[in-house]
Amino acid sequence: MSTIINNIEIIKAKATKINDVDFNNLKFGHVFSDHMLECNFKDGKWAAPKVVPYQAITLDPSSKIFHYGQSVFEGMKAYKDANEDVWLFRPLDNFNRLNISSKRLAIPELPENYFMDGLKTLLEVDKEWVPKNEGSSLYIRPFVFASGNGFHASPADEYKFIICTAPSGAYFSGEVRVLIEETYSRSANGGVGYAKAGGNYAGQFYPTQLAIEKGYQQVIWTDDNTHEYIEEAGAMNIFVRINDTLITGPTSDRILDGITRKSIIELAQAEGIAVEIRKLSVLEVVEAAKNGTLKEMFGAGTAAVISPISGFGYKDTDYDLPKLDDTYANYLKKRITDIQTNKAEDPFGWRYKI
Amino acid sequence: MSTIINNIEIIKAKATKINDVDFNNLKFGHVFSDHMLECNFKDGKWAAPKVVPYQAITLDPSSKIFHYGQSVFEGMKAYKDANEDVWLFRPLDNFNRLNISSKRLAIPELPENYFMDGLKTLLEVDKEWVPKNEGSSLYIRPFVFASGNGFHASPADEYKFIICTAPSGAYFSGEVRVLIEETYSRSANGGVGYAKAGGNYAGQFYPTQLAIEKGYQQVIWTDDNTHEYIEEAGAMNIFVRINDTLITGPTSDRILDGITRKSIIELAQAEGIAVEIRKLSVLEVVEAAKNGTLKEMFGAGTAAVISPISGFGYKDTDYDLPKLDDTYANYLKKRITDIQTNKAEDPFGWRYKI
Ligand SMILES: Cc1ncc(COP(=O)(O)O)c(C=O)c1O
Ligand SMILES: Cc1ncc(COP(=O)(O)O)c(C=O)c1O
Repeated sequence: MSTIINNIEIIKAKATKINDVDFNNLKFGHVFSDHMLECNFKDGKWAAPKVVPYQAITLDPSSKIFHYGQSVFEGMKAYKDANEDVWLFRPLDNFNRLNISSKRLAIPELPENYFMDGLKTLLEVDKEWVPKNEGSSLYIRPFVFASGNGFHASPADEYKFIICTAPSGAYFSGEVRVLIEETYSRSANGGVGYAKAGGNYAGQFYPTQLAIEKGYQQVIWTDDNTHEYIEEAGAMNIFVRINDTLITGPTSDRILDGITRKSIIELAQAEGIAVEIRKLSVLEVVEAAKNGTLKEMFGAGTAAVISPISGFGYKDTDYDLPKLDDTYANYLKKRITDIQTNKAEDPFGWRYKI
Repeated sequence: MSTIINNIEIIKAKATKINDVDFNNLKFGHVFSDHMLECNFKDGKWAAPKVVPYQAITLDPSSKIFHYGQSVFEGMKAYKDANEDVWLFRPLDNFNRLNISSKRLAIPELPENYFMDGLKTLLEVDKEWVPKNEGSSLYIRPFVFASGNGFHASPADEYKFIICTAPSGAYFSGEVRVLIEETYSRSANGGVGYAKAGGNYAGQFYPTQLAIEKGYQQVIWTDDNTHEYIEEAGAMNIFVRINDTLITGPTSDRILDGITRKSIIELAQAEGIAVEIRKLSVLEVVEAAKNGTLKEMFGAGTAAVISPISGFGYKDTDYDLPKLDDTYANYLKKRITDIQTNKAEDPFGWRYKI
């Protein structure tokens, strides 16, 4: 039995799993809502998406996803306000970035209405799954992967676009210590670093494990050629505050154009904070740490929003950041989450009502 | 009902598909044998592999393979000689490389006996699938991927190691024209280029499509920093013959340590051909093309063995290679395939009998 909303066919789950979920003790991305959106590319075109029960995916062992890494994804959040209204944050930017990623990975791009109408309908169907608790949200994971078959290193002829959602608590708990990477890299000039491609993340795991063994929680990625410039913090963009200026590197083909990053830049500028978008050398940061002008470092991304860094390691030396009372990190995190959760005005038009 | 051979449990397919297969018209990697090897990593260890009927894989939508690209693979071939004996070529090198790739992708390494005994048993069970026709072989695809669940960018807690086999004809038909890449790259310094990681291949598809649109069949990858040095040819290592010297670049963390490449180096040296393993600049190759000393270029890899290049494009100019009667490519290809297929002595001990 199916119904239709926003032009999207809905096949409802027979029973809900929501009563098994403890919304006061949510981890990140471990519990999944009752439904998912599914959309298949075949014979040269995307078929209309459907909302279906959350369900397993069955693939031939020769599916190209297992062999050639043709996959891209997005990460978004939905928030519920005091009126039980559900909000997204700049969802069209995620849609556009998904297609930018797909293009680089030779995956067919999605039509905007399949993404947006599909997402809206999925959230309407699973509205109960959007958490109300402070700090919690419904994490949304759109992804596209090669489902077509064959041991031939060439683009697949079939793909699946799926959106799953997961009611989630905070991503990181507490401040993180980071290691500035001198050996490994996450992306090449002319490579796929600017795409949210699956392979970029797998490549980060081993260097991150090595950093964890040394007592850090994350890696600060540097350029692969000289390791002299700071590029990203784990799977987040990075901001450094020297004196009262906020600095972040320019985006490039090695760096993901983060939606949190660009929102923070706009917010900070609107608040009169000096922002510099320019290459940021490791030496400059080390010097600033030594002479006391380095005030803050933080990662910025959808999952953690802003993740303050308490110290960093570089060439076998550890540097601590000062413990300030008023940090840009806290201030900007509150500003952005207040806009996201409809607790504050949204002069930028970022919020998107479901 | 199961049997045990070489310590490996075998669950046989109910019926064989072999009678549907036209062994005289095999494509590459499109038809799969009756069985596959399956081995699962769970609770911190690899369980014993089993030979099972070739079958679909069922995964949760949150499986990390769909999101974070944690996958590695190998490519090997089995050949049948006139006596119906089945031979592999340097299989331990594939096993070792699989583990090198796994380590870089934070995938747990496999025990040697699971790989080797599993592979042997699979080939014994599906011996009928190894083609006898000249130029055909049983293509073997071992692969490992993250099957564990969760939207958290960290290594999975469960993995699957699978070996599928596909009776196959030749990979390339005819000579290829290649484009020397000036914009895109396949790997970073400190990246995963030396690993046979899925993501490396997906990243090559789009630049390769652009080259195909310009009338070439493959891309010659150059270093991501300067694009001045020649590194690989599509998914093959590259050899260039200038005068009578064969030149190939040194392996590095950007280049796959190909088994065909190193076999060709050894074979050529044993035949008294001068071989140089050193950085090879685009300019040197262009100069040699202009002054007539560039005699041959070819790719080397398991699938195509040796794939002669008939010409290349660089900075909007096309260069043709001479049509020689006696090429190193043909000579070395015959030498290596004669060893692989047990038509010639194997002074190197490369052949491995099943
Ligand atoms: C590598 C990388 N950098 C930065 C970000 C931040 O992007 P966004 O703010 O759009 O989530 C992400 C995703 O979260 C990422 O994966
Ligand atoms: C990127 C790349 N380079 C080179 C090769 C050649 O390696 P091998 O000769 O071991 O097949 C391969 C695999 O075939 C490859 O994927």
